[in-house]
Amino acid sequence: MKKADIGIIGLAVMGQNLALNIQDHGYRVAAYNRTDARTDAFLDGPAAGSNIIGCYSMAELAAALPRPRIVLLMVKAGRAVDDTINLLLPHLDDGDIIVDGGNSHFQDTRRRVAELARKNLLFVGCGISGGEEGARRGPSLMPGGNISAWPRIRPVLEAIAARVDDAPCCRWVGPHGAGHFVKMVHNGIEYGDLQLIGETYHLLRFGLGMDTDRLAELFHRWNEGPLNSYLIEITGHILGARDTDGQPLIDAILDTAGQKGTGRWTAIEALQMGTPLTAINEAVFARSLSARRDERLLAAQTLGNTARSPAAPETESVAAVHNALYAAKIISYAQGFMLLRDAARAFDWELDLCGLSLIWRGGCIIRSIFLNDIAAAFKADPRLENLILAPFFAEQLRTAESGWRRAVIQGISLGIPLPAMSSSLAFFDGYRCANLPANLLQAQRDYFGAHTYERIDQPRGRFFHTDWSDLTPVREDSHD
Amino acid sequence: MKKADIGIIGLAVMGQNLALNIQDHGYRVAAYNRTDARTDAFLDGPAAGSNIIGCYSMAELAAALPRPRIVLLMVKAGRAVDDTINLLLPHLDDGDIIVDGGNSHFQDTRRRVAELARKNLLFVGCGISGGEEGARRGPSLMPGGNISAWPRIRPVLEAIAARVDDAPCCRWVGPHGAGHFVKMVHNGIEYGDLQLIGETYHLLRFGLGMDTDRLAELFHRWNEGPLNSYLIEITGHILGARDTDGQPLIDAILDTAGQKGTGRWTAIEALQMGTPLTAINEAVFARSLSARRDERLLAAQTLGNTARSPAAPETESVAAVHNALYAAKIISYAQGFMLLRDAARAFDWELDLCGLSLIWRGGCIIRSIFLNDIAAAFKADPRLENLILAPFFAEQLRTAESGWRRAVIQGISLGIPLPAMSSSLAFFDGYRCANLPANLLQAQRDYFGAHTYERIDQPRGRFFHTDWSDLTPVREDSHD
Repeated sequence: MKKADIGIIGLAVMGQNLALNIQDHGYRVAAYNRTDARTDAFLDGPAAGSNIIGCYSMAELAAALPRPRIVLLMVKAGRAVDDTINLLLPHLDDGDIIVDGGNSHFQDTRRRVAELARKNLLFVGCGISGGEEGARRGPSLMPGGNISAWPRIRPVLEAIAARVDDAPCCRWVGPHGAGHFVKMVHNGIEYGDLQLIGETYHLLRFGLGMDTDRLAELFHRWNEGPLNSYLIEITGHILGARDTDGQPLIDAILDTAGQKGTGRWTAIEALQMGTPLTAINEAVFARSLSARRDERLLAAQTLGNTARSPAAPETESVAAVHNALYAAKIISYAQGFMLLRDAARAFDWELDLCGLSLIWRGGCIIRSIFLNDIAAAFKADPRLENLILAPFFAEQLRTAESGWRRAVIQGISLGIPLPAMSSSLAFFDGYRCANLPANLLQAQRDYFGAHTYERIDQPRGRFFHTDWSDLTPVREDSHD
Repeated sequence: MKKADIGIIGLAVMGQNLALNIQDHGYRVAAYNRTDARTDAFLDGPAAGSNIIGCYSMAELAAALPRPRIVLLMVKAGRAVDDTINLLLPHLDDGDIIVDGGNSHFQDTRRRVAELARKNLLFVGCGISGGEEGARRGPSLMPGGNISAWPRIRPVLEAIAARVDDAPCCRWVGPHGAGHFVKMVHNGIEYGDLQLIGETYHLLRFGLGMDTDRLAELFHRWNEGPLNSYLIEITGHILGARDTDGQPLIDAILDTAGQKGTGRWTAIEALQMGTPLTAINEAVFARSLSARRDERLLAAQTLGNTARSPAAPETESVAAVHNALYAAKIISYAQGFMLLRDAARAFDWELDLCGLSLIWRGGCIIRSIFLNDIAAAFKADPRLENLILAPFFAEQLRTAESGWRRAVIQGISLGIPLPAMSSSLAFFDGYRCANLPANLLQAQRDYFGAHTYERIDQPRGRFFHTDWSDLTPVREDSHD
């Protein structure tokens, strides 16, 4: 039997679509699923007529692969990954490669890279973005882990990835769990984008009174400008969609959002790392709030909205909302890239932020022309501390700023919640603030807990304590 | 030798002060520290003249205590707690009690309660609030864990606790890590309070142009009203304090805040639990942002603040800021209590939210008359889903609402960051919103990921999918 080039374990939709994608590019796939029925259904269905090899045991899968083997796991993140690895191990040989293509937590990936290295196996955690469609037609790929695997897996990953400007949306991210970390942040950024678009829609529709047809048109128009992106495009389509009764389909959909956890993970990592990732965090909490629908309905009765805003000329207001969405999006991405930079420092990874922006331009949900600007900013200055300090984005923010403020003020006046948009603005104002009220906070902490403080007229690292209740003179503290 | 009533391990300031506090109330303390020198310094210093027994080994400590023994650990949270327990174990007998008075993570406490129960020892995780001064004069105590220990430890804990309205600020919180969980949320709420006061100060001083003397006076006046609290009181003192050169001391203090981790833990638990704890979360991120001072100084140059606001009559503006602080504080507490209620459900604890509000009224940093109103709300309706649904707080919010909006709008107009204040307002507007834009989000997620959605005209639990690109008719999805 002719050997296959790569094995896939797990034939849910993502695994099936990746198998078909790989096969389209001239590589031969050996496919295995825990239940034989699914393997058969795949071979008789979507894979009919292909030369994909069905395998009915791990042993068969291993036998179908030339050494060093490449096995792609497409199983549910968590324990299933460890279980599958353990079942696979007896059939592998030194130097074989396992690629985990699920949404695993990066700390799990880090552990697996180390554990399998001790068994002379090369483990790669590969973020795969783009959902079912991306898997089938070209995803964005973020592999990281044991770099010794890279030369061997690179051809097939680059072949199946989405392409933009004739370059594959795939690059080696870094060691340990770097690939899955970057994928996690990508998902967090997606949460931020979705929330900001939702707030924009809410304000335009219920603040400015635009109907869904005009909104669909507006989003299509916005998609021609700096907001051009997959998500703006599909929002236009969605707002134009009609239910069977001819009414806007959006109005029939329940406003309780689900989440799968990667947004939450991103927010938690930001808290662990001390990165002020406020926009994405508000997006995660907004989903939680949406899920509390019964409480909200009760609160709507008890605390009903009576706020009103003075009318403003519509054209001006629409432009302000556009600028608010654009500026808040810049902040949300700036925060996401701050988290990547902080993680790179904390974990000693060398993340190429320019390169990562480039591979997100195709195949994934957040693809946009905006990512070209981000890539350009990091290319011009690879040591750039924050996106919003780049001349291009600083200028964009300066231009968008007054509309951004007006839109948020309008939302507040109307009682329309804009958590991510207003949080981004507060971040912007805080980030460029040379004197935050944290001096008062340090005084308070010194007052009640003797935590000490630093002084503006003394070098950093010298700590002072005041006996505030007596207002005795300042003294320097040894701060042990 | 006469036996002691309670043993204390760890004689840093907190341990020393608790020992002295216990001794003041007629209980005899046996005190041990890992290093003998600190024990001697304590006995010769603060404890001189007392009948506190110094012990120089775990064995000596155990011998000084009648069975069942009570040993209070006042060591650094984390591994030191486990290490100390392991060293202590050989000297304990069945039924002895270990109380951990540090800021341990509640999951560690849960683990220790279970592990020690298997060794027939009773473990209690006791949140102790109030810092050094509280420990010495009367802290707020939040014990939880193995309830079999409660009758034995109750007299001494109630004796040393702060008292309000002649009741001790101490009550049994619940099983497992409930005591430390509640203490963690208490600390998170403290983060929220501090941040909101900081934003208030910032807006009054740099938005309304009030000098520190007038601000000190204002905070003293506010302390007579509904904001009456320890933190408002000390803020007034701090703003009145002068540096050696006669200038406001606050102006000499560096605006980079420290944090010890319990605020961050609170935010992380809220994310894990799906509780939209936005105000406290912004407070945690604001500290992180303050610590990035070099970046901020750079950004102040690149992105300098040019925003300006129309002048408003000052009296009205000050009243608006007062109401903003008060309303945002209500939201922050409401979110904190949401988290407690969610945790009670998730972990199957029966938390008495009225009782917890009462024990925070004394001994701790967040003590305030406001907590009486919270206790009253939960007393009137123990099943109250959210504080802001209580008639009293709903009415307070209705009254404060317009000032709250004006103040936040003023901050936005001026470019003064009010992350927690504006985030609270966005939460309020979202919480009382019967129709959030999460319907668009669900449509988007169904569009790109076939995640399905529910419909407003169908029962919950039925999921629908649309082929959005073709806009084919809606169909119900099996949603496996």
